[in-house]
Order: sequence, then C-alpha cells, then structure tokens
Amino acid sequence: MSDAKIPVLIDCDPGIDDAVALTLAFGCGRLDVLGVATVAGNTTGENTYRNARKFLSFIGAEVEVARGADKPMLRPLVTAPDVHGKTGLGAIGETEDGGTGNDVTDTAGRSALDLITEILLNHPTKVTLIPVGPLTNIAIAFLARPEIKDRIEKIVLMGGAALEGNRTPAAEFNIYVDPEAARVVFDSGVPITMIGLDVTHQALIYPDEIEALRKLGLVGRIVAELMDFYGHHYRKRFEGNPIHDALAVAAVFEPDIVSTRHVNVCVETSGEFTLGRTVVDFRGVTGREPNCDVALGVDRERFINLIFAAVQNLERRREVRSRE
Amino acid sequence: MSDAKIPVLIDCDPGIDDAVALTLAFGCGRLDVLGVATVAGNTTGENTYRNARKFLSFIGAEVEVARGADKPMLRPLVTAPDVHGKTGLGAIGETEDGGTGNDVTDTAGRSALDLITEILLNHPTKVTLIPVGPLTNIAIAFLARPEIKDRIEKIVLMGGAALEGNRTPAAEFNIYVDPEAARVVFDSGVPITMIGLDVTHQALIYPDEIEALRKLGLVGRIVAELMDFYGHHYRKRFEGNPIHDALAVAAVFEPDIVSTRHVNVCVETSGEFTLGRTVVDFRGVTGREPNCDVALGVDRERFINLIFAAVQNLERRREVRSRE
Amino acid sequence: MSDAKIPVLIDCDPGIDDAVALTLAFGCGRLDVLGVATVAGNTTGENTYRNARKFLSFIGAEVEVARGADKPMLRPLVTAPDVHGKTGLGAIGETEDGGTGNDVTDTAGRSALDLITEILLNHPTKVTLIPVGPLTNIAIAFLARPEIKDRIEKIVLMGGAALEGNRTPAAEFNIYVDPEAARVVFDSGVPITMIGLDVTHQALIYPDEIEALRKLGLVGRIVAELMDFYGHHYRKRFEGNPIHDALAVAAVFEPDIVSTRHVNVCVETSGEFTLGRTVVDFRGVTGREPNCDVALGVDRERFINLIFAAVQNLERRREVRSRE
Amino acid sequence: MSDAKIPVLIDCDPGIDDAVALTLAFGCGRLDVLGVATVAGNTTGENTYRNARKFLSFIGAEVEVARGADKPMLRPLVTAPDVHGKTGLGAIGETEDGGTGNDVTDTAGRSALDLITEILLNHPTKVTLIPVGPLTNIAIAFLARPEIKDRIEKIVLMGGAALEGNRTPAAEFNIYVDPEAARVVFDSGVPITMIGLDVTHQALIYPDEIEALRKLGLVGRIVAELMDFYGHHYRKRFEGNPIHDALAVAAVFEPDIVSTRHVNVCVETSGEFTLGRTVVDFRGVTGREPNCDVALGVDRERFINLIFAAVQNLERRREVRSRE
Repeated sequence: MSDAKIPVLIDCDPGIDDAVALTLAFGCGRLDVLGVATVAGNTTGENTYRNARKFLSFIGAEVEVARGADKPMLRPLVTAPDVHGKTGLGAIGETEDGGTGNDVTDTAGRSALDLITEILLNHPTKVTLIPVGPLTNIAIAFLARPEIKDRIEKIVLMGGAALEGNRTPAAEFNIYVDPEAARVVFDSGVPITMIGLDVTHQALIYPDEIEALRKLGLVGRIVAELMDFYGHHYRKRFEGNPIHDALAVAAVFEPDIVSTRHVNVCVETSGEFTLGRTVVDFRGVTGREPNCDVALGVDRERFINLIFAAVQNLERRREVRSRE
Repeated sequence: MSDAKIPVLIDCDPGIDDAVALTLAFGCGRLDVLGVATVAGNTTGENTYRNARKFLSFIGAEVEVARGADKPMLRPLVTAPDVHGKTGLGAIGETEDGGTGNDVTDTAGRSALDLITEILLNHPTKVTLIPVGPLTNIAIAFLARPEIKDRIEKIVLMGGAALEGNRTPAAEFNIYVDPEAARVVFDSGVPITMIGLDVTHQALIYPDEIEALRKLGLVGRIVAELMDFYGHHYRKRFEGNPIHDALAVAAVFEPDIVSTRHVNVCVETSGEFTLGRTVVDFRGVTGREPNCDVALGVDRERFINLIFAAVQNLERRREVRSRE
Repeated sequence: MSDAKIPVLIDCDPGIDDAVALTLAFGCGRLDVLGVATVAGNTTGENTYRNARKFLSFIGAEVEVARGADKPMLRPLVTAPDVHGKTGLGAIGETEDGGTGNDVTDTAGRSALDLITEILLNHPTKVTLIPVGPLTNIAIAFLARPEIKDRIEKIVLMGGAALEGNRTPAAEFNIYVDPEAARVVFDSGVPITMIGLDVTHQALIYPDEIEALRKLGLVGRIVAELMDFYGHHYRKRFEGNPIHDALAVAAVFEPDIVSTRHVNVCVETSGEFTLGRTVVDFRGVTGREPNCDVALGVDRERFINLIFAAVQNLERRREVRSRE
Repeated sequence: MSDAKIPVLIDCDPGIDDAVALTLAFGCGRLDVLGVATVAGNTTGENTYRNARKFLSFIGAEVEVARGADKPMLRPLVTAPDVHGKTGLGAIGETEDGGTGNDVTDTAGRSALDLITEILLNHPTKVTLIPVGPLTNIAIAFLARPEIKDRIEKIVLMGGAALEGNRTPAAEFNIYVDPEAARVVFDSGVPITMIGLDVTHQALIYPDEIEALRKLGLVGRIVAELMDFYGHHYRKRFEGNPIHDALAVAAVFEPDIVSTRHVNVCVETSGEFTLGRTVVDFRGVTGREPNCDVALGVDRERFINLIFAAVQNLERRREVRSRE
C-alpha cells in the first residue's frame, strides 16, 4: 500500500449502511484498512460477522475480519430488523454467498479485541479508528488495554445526534444500544469526530442516484439493492436514504466534507426518556472541556460522488479478477 | 373590556422578559388579563411577587396579583441572578418603586392557587393560561383541583426546547427548575402550545431596535433599560436579545406569528445530564399521542412590531394618567 | 368527645388492613377522628372511597369521608388486587352494603384536600395525621396550602421499609405507588413516625387469633373474613397476617408500642430497581439531618390485644344500635 | 502444593482488611493461590499494587502480583482514606518496606487482565475467584474474554449489603465504587457467593482478641496494628472491628462458616440515593432467577480462630525463613 494512505481500523455491524461504508473504505483508494472488527448492533453478533465477511469477499477486499462483542457491556442487545432486514443485509442477506460464489466459512483469526489491540500496538504509526456500530468493542479494548489510546490518531465514529435521535426522540441507535460503552469512549481523552444524525440525515442519496448506481455493474447493482431495502424504512420520512456509516469513512479521508464544532459531548446512561442521548454543549454552559468535533454540515453531492467513484473502482477490480 | 378580547391568566416570575411579557399583555389591547400569579424561578418568590406588582403599577395595569409557590414541587429552588440581576429586574429592580412613585405594599389578596382556580371555575368562558415561569403553580392547581382543566382553553407557555437548552445543554431554565411540575402539566391532557428556545432564540430584538424603544417615552426607556441588562448576558452569544416570555403572550393573540408542529412531548425528570429535557417526538418513533404544538418558526419582525405598539399604547395611557 | 382524646385525621385506601385500621381508630376510644380522606392505592379512587364509607357505616362510625386523588402525582396508578381483592375489601367488597343494610350513596361533602386543609386550619389544637395509603393527598395538601404544616402535631404513617420492601425488593407499596408524594412529605419538616414493613411484618395476627376474633359477633366475624382473604396472599410467606395500617393507628395512642430511631429518611424517585426506596441513614453517614422516627421493634401481643378490644367495643355499640 | 488445596485467584485493593485476607489466604494452608491482582478502590491503583507486594513480601508469600484497573469502568475513583489511611495500609503503609527489609520494586509481570485470563484458561481445573475490592478487574476480564467464565468454579466476593450499606445508607463501598462492574459480574451467570456487610458486620474481632494477636510474634503484631488503625474508624459504631475481606477468604475453604440464601441480586446503577445498591429479592417478588448465595449468618468465633491459626502459621514460617 502507498505511504500516502491513511491507516485505519473499521469496527462495524453490517448492516446495510455498514456495507456501503466498507464499499467506500475499500473503493476509495485512500485508506489502508488494517483490519475489520464486527460487533452486535443492527443485527446479532453472528450475523454481523458473517455479513462482514460475505460482503468483503464480494467486493474483493483482502482484510482480516475479527468477531467482537455479542452484546452490549451491561444491557441486553437491541437490534433493528425493521431497518436492516432479518439477517442485517436486507434482501441480499438471505442468500448464502451474497451472489459471489466466494466461501466465507474458513475464517479463524483473532478476536476483535486482539485484532484492535495488536494492530494498534504494532503499527508503526498512529491509526484512525472508524467505529460505525455500537461502541462495545472499542470501550472494551480501552478498558482492557488503556495503553492503546495513545496509539490512536483519532476516532471518527458514526453515532449520536446533537439535535434529534432516531431510535428514540433523544437517542441515536448506536449510542442507545450501548450507552455505557459510548461513555467510556467519549470520556477516553482520544480525539473524536462525531458523525451523527445531524449530518447523516442531510447526506441523503436520492432515488435517481440509486438508479444511476444500479447501472454500474454488479457492485453498483448490489449497493442499489441495499438502498432499495433501506428505502422501505427511510422513504416514509426522507426524500432519499441516509447512508450513515459511509459518511464516517468519507470524513476520514476528506475531513472537510463535513463542517464541525469542537465542543463537549457527554453520554446519558440513565434517564427515563433520554437514555443514550449525546448531550452536546454548544454554548459552553457546563464548563466541561471540549472532547469532540461534532459534525453539523455536510457537502452532500461531494459525498455521493465519492460513493459513485468507489463503486466504479471496485467494479473495475472485480472485472479484472473475474477475467483472471 | 371588549367581548373580542381573549380572557387569559398570566403566571410569571419577573424576571426581565416577564416584564416585557406583561408590557405586551397589557399594551396590546387584545387580551383580557383576569389575573397575574407569581412563582419562584428567575428569582425568589418574594422578589417575583414584588417585581410583578411594581412593574404592573408602573405600566398602570389594574389587575389582581397573587403570590404562588416559593419553591419547586420537589427540589430546591434554582434562580438565575446572572441573567436577571440580584432582585430579578436588572438595574431597575434595585430601586424601590421602579421610578414610578407608586406604592406596591398594600396588596393583600388571594394565593396564586385560589386566584387561578377561582377565576377558572367562575369565568363564563374557558380561559387561556400563559405560564412563563416554572410550572409549579399550574401543576399544583391541577393536582389540587383537577376539575379546572376543563375550564382552560389552552396553555401557551414559555419553556422547553426541542433542540438546545440554556440552563444545561439539554434543558431550558423554566422546565429545569421544576421538571416534575412540567411533567404534570404536559401529561394533563390540556392543549399546550410550547414556545421554547427553538423560537425565542430566533425572536431577537436588535441593538438598534432597543435604541428606538428608548426614545418612546418613559415606558420605552424602562423596557430599553431592561434590555440593556439582559444584553450583558445574551450579547455574548447572540446578535440581539431574546425576549422569551413576551413571545408566549404574542402567540396567544396572534397565533400564526409562530409556526408549530403537533407532536408528543415528554419531560425527563431523572437523568444525569438531561434533567428537565423536553423530549419532542417529531417523527412519531415512540407511538405516544401528540400532546403539544411545538413552535419552531417565528415572524421576528412582526413580533418586534407588536412590542413597539404595546409600548406606545402604554406610554400614551401613562401620559393621560399623569395629566389627570 | 372527651378532651383526653387525640385529634386525628386519617387518610386511607381501603384496602383490607385499612379497614382494620379504621376498626381500631373508631373502636379504641382514644382518638377523636376529625375526618377520613380516601386516596387511590390498594384499589381505584372510586373503590377506596366507596369501601371507606361502606366500612365506616358498618362499624357505625359517624365521620365525614372525603374523596381525594384518583392517581399519583406524576405516575400511572398501580394497585394491588392480588392482595386486597378485585374491589379492595376481599370477599366482602363484592356485596353492595358490606352486609349491614346501610346506604352509602348519600355522601356529598368536601374534597379530601378541603377536608384536610379546613380541619387543620380550623381545629383549635394541632392535629395528628395518620396516612396509611400512598401519600398523594397529603403531598398535594402540603403543596397547595403550605401553611397547614404548622397545624400538624405529627404524621404517623404506614409506609416504607428500612430493610426489605414488598412491592419490589427495595420498596414498600405505599411509597412505590407515589414516590414523589412521599418525597414531598418526608422533606416537609413535619415530624414523622414511619411505621414500615420493618415492624408491620413483625406484628402478625396468627390463625388461632383470627379464629378467636371470628367469635366476637358480627364485627369480629367481618374482620376475621378480611383476614381470611389477606391470608391467601400472606400465608405463603408468613406464619400469620400483617395488619400494616392498624399499627400506625395504634402507634398514635400508644406510641411506646413501637421502638423507634430518630434518623434521616430520603425517598428515591429514580433508580432502575430502587424506585420508592425509603433510604434510612441509621449510622449518620450522609450528614443529612434526622427527619423521621423509624419504627424497628413492636410489642406484637399488646397490638393484637388492642385490635381485640376495639372489635369488642364496636360490637357492643353495634348491638346497642341494632336494639334501638 | 497439595492436590487437596483449592485453586484460587485473589483480586484485592489493600486496604487493611485486604491485608488480613491475604494473611488468611496464605496462612490457612488450604488454598492454592495462583495469583493476586490489584485494583483501585480503598486507595489508588498505585498504592494497592505497592501495598499488596509489600504485604505479601512481608508474610513470605511467593505469588505473582499483577496490577489492574486504576479507575472504575465509567466513573471517577472514590477512595476511603478515612478508613484505610492515606496510603491504604494504616500506619504501616507509611514505611517503605513494611518493616521487613524486603524489596518490592523489582516486579514486572503481567497485567491483572492477563494474569486472570491466562491463569483461568490454562489451569487444569476450574478456579475460584475471590474479589474483595471493586469488581472492575473481574468485569473487564469478563467483557474482554467471555470464555473465561466457564473456567470459574465460583466467585466468592466481599461486597454488597442486603440490608444496610456503609459508603451510603444504601450501598456498600466496593459496589458503590464501580456499580457498572458489579452489574457485569452479578449478571454474568457465574455462581456467586456474596459476603456482604450483613455478615461482615457480625464477624467482628474484639479488642481483647486483637491484644492476643499482638502477642503472636511479628506477624501478629503487624495484623494487630492494622486492626488498631481500623479501630479509629469502626469503634465509633461497633464493639469490635469487622475484617470484611478475610471472611470471603474463609468462606472459600470453610463454606459452612456462613449461612446463605440462594436469591436474585441486581445492582442499581442509577438512582439519586441508591447508586450501587445490591437489591436482594428474598421473597421472589420480581420473578427474576436466583443468581447469588447471599450470606446472612456467620460463625464469628470459628472465623476468628481461623485468623489466629493463619497468623501463627505465617509466623512459624517467618521464623524459619529468618533463621535460614
């Protein structure tokens, strides 16, 4: 890999938008993805692990995938089958190999905890973390090996909402599922960029763009089909689909695609109606130190263009592979 | 009073913007103010009661003023001397009579509870409540005399925030001070219009407008001086001053001055960082029934014009009185 | 009434043990019961009001009964049909007149709030309150008319538990049902004696004693039948039946029937597993001022003897009445 | 070590009673102590680590000591200098080597997490855990390596209180310090014996017994001096000193020294007055499955005799060593 690439670790719970995030991460040509960890969230830990391997195999990504936590630190797991389908990848989750003929059963490998800690401790430079699911794996890694915090360049996470939640009016899904893990991460002292609903609900892909994607070969078709499934849920409320997790990936290699404010964010771990709220102190009324860059604005078209370019890249590579 | 006037009860904790709210209520010519109750909030119960009588005397309002709760239902009182000054009316709060020569010590009268319940039960038509402080008095009245709820046309309150709080990042001051009272009111089944920070932070009066007010005789000068004091606090964060409580008054006689959404609002009464949060379910994710019209947009200029007109009206009346 | 009698107000939610408490209050000859208020708790507000009138009519008590709150201050009502039966008085609750032929439908009268506040404000001496249900009525009265607190000799309440709860492992039923009301009362500054499960679970009436009661005429039989119903619930866990509420009545006219400690008690109004816990600071670790005499020991036999004597008294009076 | 010995891992935060627990563990001749982990609690993580090594060196224990968490999972550390002294071992904590001439600075070794997980995974039989401080290390190990739970015979922990707390009226210190960690452990499914304040406050060592200890050579004198320091705190409230942590050790090799009940225990992680409460469902009112043997009775004299025997054993060994 080129020296110019940014070394990253991805922690995800595929999950439809996670799959698009992986598409962007491996198709953008700008990231050196050192490993992919999976965590229970959008669907069970078993499903997210299988989905990650299946999808990465489909897009021809050669990367170690490691399975992490099957449940939040303290609470029972809450999943989102209404959004992501029964097995977590919409309609394509139902077939065994994602339509690629690749086998995904032979993986052994390290646990997510070992993958994360060993890569962080051994990589010659600091590494950027991209968690796009509940923060369970990251929090456990911080608790188990506090020394890894010094090896992280920054965390660019999808999660939270300064304004309005989705799982509840107050809370975004990833934070709601494991608020204690989120608190560990937000209180860790590691620099954080929060790509929350405030921007992901602005960074929609519109129906005509999905149709254009569908024409970009097999990769484009699969991504379009993921978006079709997502649309069942989102088109009731939005003109297009958010692709939450992919925006966190984009914000790593094109940081100015979002505008941010450096403020304090605390995570509510109690509360009758507010569990999992990311409480953002925009005006400094609490006196607590800023610990987070909260994304508030986004260049939607530039983001969608990045998705298209990544899909085209992956499709070209796929065609090369299939000719070999 | 004319039949066309809207019968209202005002519950307030003057408080700088409360004074402007009273200015608008008595100067607009559109409301039949049946009584004014006071409650501890911006400052102590003793101060808010004295301030209300002092200011009403100054603007020549003939209305019964009744003293209510000296503290929130369950919690110790939190006040806001940094915003409203030591005694609650900024600099003019320091002088004994507000510069009017009027005596404010001769009031006896009913308690706020008696004022509210007796007026509601005896008025020939339903009455609109305009609470612009902590909801302690209203909640206690609802608990003590549940039958009054049927005698209320609607509640147009200043309080809460769908998006960002002020006392904390999550909570607006009035709700934060007595969250249990707020829960009683929001859960009461009475129609509510919530004039929260979402609109009051848009309805600013700008410095040049304050200067114009100052030239409108004694009433204008006093209101301008109140705004001067407010400015010490607000000009750090805003281009002008919000006049929170006055907007609730305006929204009673010109309801379309704000745009609203009819949604469910719950009040958080626990939570480490979110106490007093008004949790607004814009997208219907909770399945809870809508109970509130939440104001989100406001016609700022029209609002400021209403303030000017009310000041001019009161000044004219004051001059007539002083000539008599 | 004799001067030596102690003037009391009873606030109850009959409820089986409430009925025995009324039996003791009216049969002991030591209390001047100025009024009886009812509150929702063991069963609905409608049921407790009807049950109180029905039972008081049956025992020949001439006293004003006033209906109070139909639900807790902030929360939905939780009742205990498993303990007290569908209508709240076990099997005898099912018949219209409690087997007495008395009519209970002609009551009009004041609300509980008016009864409590007017009696307290007008009685020549201070009055003892005996609340044996959720503290909703008392809290609302304190919030509506804070001045009544000075007119109360003390509050001897049935509720709470220093050690083990009943509705949950942490909380006793009366406090659990309306923890916010309990907080208002415990924080009120009025002297409180807390007759909690710590003593009521020691003050059991045993099966042979119930049989002896049954032979004491109609009153004894009815009380025994109430105890029979109670036994369905309690005999799984205890050798006899607690008669919770009656012990609070006994502790008013024979205070040394319980041994107490003067300590601080706070009421938990949040908490996932501890809502409604009465947190008792026996060792002074909090630095909070003592506000309550918590009963820890009880002279069981003396208590049971008081019950017997009261039943015999009421039976004698009943026979006199029926001969008239 | 003999086959008959019970293989255990000790996790502690010395701490005065922790030192006595170590005395008993190494002096009883019944346990095979595979390792000792330390955790922040009674004092800082730095202090507990140094204190453990210092005291183990003093009593001639050859065992690996590993340093664990320096703070609770989510919360800031709370320590108990009033009980355990500035550095955590009372007066003897002030001197560098505990008066033994032994060097404690050359330890390198594994982290507590590695010690715990590697020993559990590699030991030929299941191992008993004896955590006598906050449960931070154990919870982190369970989160990091869930597979170790199957390698644990049971957990015999000092912590919690069915009845009355000590750090607050509701909560015992170890649980209060890290309630989230306690929840992870109590919800883990691993069999737990809870040696809480309910028994440790019964298992006091009396002043005359301390004097007898003092005469048993150097080891006895040091233990007596630890007890002297403890006495400053405890003698205000008790006739003697509790030696909390040592009772958990005793309950491993003499399980019938305590009587227990098998019930459900939940840990409160929110609550204004009840944070860290171990909520014990003695009567099965919650329907939750029993997950813990809660100790309620203890044979005090037998416990004190075990302490004496252990001290004598260690003193004999010490004399042998010093003669070599």
